Amino acid sequence: MEERLNAFFVTRGPIVEPLGPVFVDAARALQDFVIRGGKRTRPSFAWTGWLGAGRSAEDADADAVLTACSALELVQACALIHDDIIDSSRTRRGFPTVHVDYEQRHRDRRWRGDAAHYGESVAVLIGDLALAWADDMTRDAGLPADAAARFAPVWAAMRTEVLGGQLLDIYGESAGDETVEAALRINRYKTAAYTIERPLHLGAALADASPELVAAYREFGTDIGIAFQLRDDLLGVFGDPAVTGKPSGDDLREGKRTVLIAEALQRADADAPAVADLVRSSLGTDVTPDRVAELRTAITELGAVDAVEKRIAALTDQALTALDASTATPEAKRQLRAMALAATARSY
Amino acid sequence: MEERLNAFFVTRGPIVEPLGPVFVDAARALQDFVIRGGKRTRPSFAWTGWLGAGRSAEDADADAVLTACSALELVQACALIHDDIIDSSRTRRGFPTVHVDYEQRHRDRRWRGDAAHYGESVAVLIGDLALAWADDMTRDAGLPADAAARFAPVWAAMRTEVLGGQLLDIYGESAGDETVEAALRINRYKTAAYTIERPLHLGAALADASPELVAAYREFGTDIGIAFQLRDDLLGVFGDPAVTGKPSGDDLREGKRTVLIAEALQRADADAPAVADLVRSSLGTDVTPDRVAELRTAITELGAVDAVEKRIAALTDQALTALDASTATPEAKRQLRAMALAATARSY
Repeated sequence: MEERLNAFFVTRGPIVEPLGPVFVDAARALQDFVIRGGKRTRPSFAWTGWLGAGRSAEDADADAVLTACSALELVQACALIHDDIIDSSRTRRGFPTVHVDYEQRHRDRRWRGDAAHYGESVAVLIGDLALAWADDMTRDAGLPADAAARFAPVWAAMRTEVLGGQLLDIYGESAGDETVEAALRINRYKTAAYTIERPLHLGAALADASPELVAAYREFGTDIGIAFQLRDDLLGVFGDPAVTGKPSGDDLREGKRTVLIAEALQRADADAPAVADLVRSSLGTDVTPDRVAELRTAITELGAVDAVEKRIAALTDQALTALDASTATPEAKRQLRAMALAATARSY
Repeated sequence: MEERLNAFFVTRGPIVEPLGPVFVDAARALQDFVIRGGKRTRPSFAWTGWLGAGRSAEDADADAVLTACSALELVQACALIHDDIIDSSRTRRGFPTVHVDYEQRHRDRRWRGDAAHYGESVAVLIGDLALAWADDMTRDAGLPADAAARFAPVWAAMRTEVLGGQLLDIYGESAGDETVEAALRINRYKTAAYTIERPLHLGAALADASPELVAAYREFGTDIGIAFQLRDDLLGVFGDPAVTGKPSGDDLREGKRTVLIAEALQRADADAPAVADLVRSSLGTDVTPDRVAELRTAITELGAVDAVEKRIAALTDQALTALDASTATPEAKRQLRAMALAATARSY
């Protein structure tokens, strides 16, 4: 997949180079971001979905399909670069985020104007470039016309859903929507649809899979996607910094409105108003390690952790049942089961 | 074209509605922005380019072509919404800009967090949605496969060029690149290619026009596009607020690095260092009406206005010569000539 991505970046050269070194450098920053990053989760689900519909890497169109699947990494680059602006994140994958990188260049060279605003402006444009190039990469992939026609509506739905999910997320945080339903809806669109359900669906669409297999993939993808986000929510509060790569209790500090927090607040409002006050007044503040420990105990004693673990277990069961009953190939079933368990297993 | 755009928005309903009223409302904000705004300049050039290659509104594929051309308005929506964030613009077309609109909603409802950051975050996502939907609209237009294949590389170049041009623009402003060459390069990509050259090229590509007509369109589009921006630069300093809808001398206040300013600084550096200091120290500051008048006089006396007028005249001549010599239909030549003159004529 990295080969495909690098090859695509090479094809941008003749369009980018006439604009001169400043733009060449920005395109290179995007390429570096894409190539060094990530586990290629979305392309892997898409490719596995395609194989699982009975297709093979030896098929004539396999090359085009792999290229189209790899383009998901460019959508993801846009999502991350713009998300990092929205979340005011300073680092990603151990590097400065794109907006911080350009902010720093501005500062180092003592340019005029506001360095932070410059950094964000450049990052908005580089994210836009990633989104435009994602489309270009799928159009240039060489898909047969009928496959491209099946691909388009799923690709459209995926991009709209992830943007909608992000919008609901920042709305929920600002408006203070604390319900479990709101948190689950954000998970559904921002994570589950975008990360697993639609990538599998894309693979199935490219393979012209049966409606039954599409339905099974989508159920599996939605359930595992939500369970994956719930696991991530637990890690955000209880995770070991050595494993997660993030400071302990990071989600509390960021004030994320997760299902875990919604479950805790719902219970505290009913039974322990003082605890509800403690959680609400701590969220989104620079909590001390002692306060993190206190909040962890409170969230656990309220039963919120058990409730979330039960949801994860139920969703995982449901997903694997749908997968088992599907017409996916045995090899794809094995792979998808392993991917599902890796994404949702308790690891702290 | 508005009919096509509205019809496209209707097709987004089934993807948008499941995410709930907050996202429905954001999609509606985008639709309002697109429908109420603008002169449909880019789709008009594309459509005229298609007709000028000998095609007719009665042709079987005319419907699909008109839809694909209309999608340019969605690219433009992304460019404007993100540009307004980058330029910190508060109003557009007499309405609050998208980020200001959402900032105001946040303030009115006394939500948590920073209202300005919320407004910008929502506007980043709505701009992304416009860019993604632009692509969806062209894919759904129903273009014949061969037309779609000719369309794709021009569409790709256009999106990349406008993003590159915007990037060069904010780089130039921050880094203080004051050369005429830098300003002309930004005009070339941010305005000329995006507004006229590539839209005409798109129309020609859809029509399977001859390489000669494509070359003539591109020369015409580049020249008129740059001339149009030069006229806009003059209006930004000398325009009548009653005509331009912007405060008098707005470009000076914004500190725009235009060809006009570059010509003035180049001359002042050679002949009148005190005037160069005056211009440099005023640009990008909240200049008074008296200072605007003083700068206008200085810029005129330096010969910068004459130099820009000469460039406009030469580019317009060159463009019309290329158009006249082309194989475009007489009706298209008449239309494009009228559009060229309207875009570049002295009007203050």
